[in-house]
Amino acid sequence: MEPFFPPRRLLLGPGPSMVHRRVLHALATPLVGHLDPAFLGLMTDVQALLRLIFSTSNHMTIALSGTGSAGMEAAVVNIVEPGDAVVVGVNGVFGTRLATVVERCGGKAIRLEVPWGQVIEPEMIATTLQRSSPVKAVVLVHAETSTGAWQPLKPIGALCRQYNALLIVDAVTSLGGIPVEVDQWGIDVCYSATQKCLSCPPGLAPLTLSERARAVIKHRRVPCHSWYLDLSLIADYWTEHNRAYHHTAPISMVYALREALRLIEEEGLPARFARHQLNSRALLAGLMALDLDPLPPPNQRLPTLICVTVPAHIEEASVRSQLLERFGIEIGGGLGPLKGKVWRIGLMGESSTEANVLTLLNAIEEIGIRSGWVSTPGAALQAAAHIYSGGR
Amino acid sequence: MEPFFPPRRLLLGPGPSMVHRRVLHALATPLVGHLDPAFLGLMTDVQALLRLIFSTSNHMTIALSGTGSAGMEAAVVNIVEPGDAVVVGVNGVFGTRLATVVERCGGKAIRLEVPWGQVIEPEMIATTLQRSSPVKAVVLVHAETSTGAWQPLKPIGALCRQYNALLIVDAVTSLGGIPVEVDQWGIDVCYSATQKCLSCPPGLAPLTLSERARAVIKHRRVPCHSWYLDLSLIADYWTEHNRAYHHTAPISMVYALREALRLIEEEGLPARFARHQLNSRALLAGLMALDLDPLPPPNQRLPTLICVTVPAHIEEASVRSQLLERFGIEIGGGLGPLKGKVWRIGLMGESSTEANVLTLLNAIEEIGIRSGWVSTPGAALQAAAHIYSGGR
Repeated sequence: MEPFFPPRRLLLGPGPSMVHRRVLHALATPLVGHLDPAFLGLMTDVQALLRLIFSTSNHMTIALSGTGSAGMEAAVVNIVEPGDAVVVGVNGVFGTRLATVVERCGGKAIRLEVPWGQVIEPEMIATTLQRSSPVKAVVLVHAETSTGAWQPLKPIGALCRQYNALLIVDAVTSLGGIPVEVDQWGIDVCYSATQKCLSCPPGLAPLTLSERARAVIKHRRVPCHSWYLDLSLIADYWTEHNRAYHHTAPISMVYALREALRLIEEEGLPARFARHQLNSRALLAGLMALDLDPLPPPNQRLPTLICVTVPAHIEEASVRSQLLERFGIEIGGGLGPLKGKVWRIGLMGESSTEANVLTLLNAIEEIGIRSGWVSTPGAALQAAAHIYSGGR
Repeated sequence: MEPFFPPRRLLLGPGPSMVHRRVLHALATPLVGHLDPAFLGLMTDVQALLRLIFSTSNHMTIALSGTGSAGMEAAVVNIVEPGDAVVVGVNGVFGTRLATVVERCGGKAIRLEVPWGQVIEPEMIATTLQRSSPVKAVVLVHAETSTGAWQPLKPIGALCRQYNALLIVDAVTSLGGIPVEVDQWGIDVCYSATQKCLSCPPGLAPLTLSERARAVIKHRRVPCHSWYLDLSLIADYWTEHNRAYHHTAPISMVYALREALRLIEEEGLPARFARHQLNSRALLAGLMALDLDPLPPPNQRLPTLICVTVPAHIEEASVRSQLLERFGIEIGGGLGPLKGKVWRIGLMGESSTEANVLTLLNAIEEIGIRSGWVSTPGAALQAAAHIYSGGR
């Protein structure tokens, strides 16, 4: 079997995003053991950096040994016990999945369903909490990767406290790209993934637990179904004065995460959020010049994942194939009911650059000109350039 | 925060083992998407190579997105349903953990306990199967990393078929170091980890399922507790003609695994097994010359993980610290009841070399001379050299 040389790709899909060469170099660092003092020190560094981007002082702030979906499962399986009522916002693939995960734990999922692309209004949550009390937790997806919808979270934390429910938040496509204020917003369990706005390869799930959440876990009636994701056991490994063996940490991935987080620290969160905003505005201006309109309503559009409706006269799958094959650019198609109807373009972490926005718009225009659905060459680029030169 | 430069380490503990520079380079390869045709082709390669080292034609042969402990959980949680009786061999940490995982799934664990360091005799399993029928599965640890015991498996497959039970095998510290004959021995579920004899960094769990096991999973009464590790869903992503999205694969780790498996294919399994045998014989000869005797009885000693009893006059933890700090060599201490009583030395994959055996023996001798418990300098090296020159 021959060595593997991947084709050159510009990753502008829903993840993975582009990875900085410093992170790739970190991955290739020779290994030390998972109980080596040098590795334990590195874990402490990663925890400090994760607290920074989660905006939290939570002691239990860690990187789980699995992808974002493992983060989701850990968040639910540690909190939910058989019979517990859990309110789940369902407005896309990941809310839908969360409800399933709740039910697999024996929980009773109370689904708050709204059309895909929209967000769950706080009033809807308030009404449900009032009607369904006691509720163990409210679960919301901050950034719905399947629709590009930006869920408001600020008012929900206080609401949850009022009804003595925990707030669990999926920050997979938000952490490191838009503000995630764990402490200020009163989030009790927040998890993410490395391959989105953190621009690290997939394989780890950053996760943080409030003291309220830890107390709930501590007083469970039955042990958590999962041994691998049991946060009460994992805490013993991630607690600085303990570091008891639970399972072998994915050492190389933790190296990579540390370097990716260091890059974020160097850029600074405000600058990083502004960059994500600017590039998404430019991209969206360009796409709208091509009659590709965003799925979520104004003020609910993520800058990290831009989801646009593809008109019927455009062969959406064919355009994506051409982007990949002719231009080496990956963007995402729709999932579930949105299959064939939308494109999902990720501008996350290292992928969110002016050059990438212009490269993508130019490639879409070229394909559109050939196929006859673009009549004014350069209109999309012009619209984007207008934003970059300070326009609105 | 400064860049991380790890200290130089010779990894001779219970894992991770040394990683070949070709594998480290593969880790640093730029990413493609998890649904990119190039990545799907790479998955097909990994599956073909895994079938080779598992000695199986099982279609469902994959790399799970988690460490070896995730492989353990997946093996159990997909097969065991609430109320199922499961026979578990308990002769070390990992058998003990398996019984816990069975119980967390609602299964009834029938523990076959023997002293740590020993193996579960087939007769004991036969008697239990006869007495406890119906039994859903028999779970055995092929290579007990906590004791160095080599569990015989050959006769167990037929026994399990006789009682209509599945055979689940933990091959974490065996796969790629000693023969694992999945098809020939009638193993139904076999999982491993990447960071042991495959000499790839930790983070993936190779796993294979027989058609019998797949049928059992297909006809479950209730869905598997875990969504993340649900093999019926994961199969859709790893089936060549399907490749349906389940979760984002840890792309860089799969790159690394492919390269690690390519190295194994180049060496050839018989040569690799012989290398592991020879180096472990040399190491053991050297250790026995220092009165460090193996814990497991003859013919039950793993060549991949050598576990020796440390006499009371040797300060075992201090020797390990000196090995790490003065010589940069990692070896493992004892777990649970063996804490402070044994050393666990891994000669797995890239770690299993003549140079490493001699380096370690020399370092132990140097420490022993300083501390006064070695009186004849060079005796251990001489005993090892005798083996390398063809002695027995």
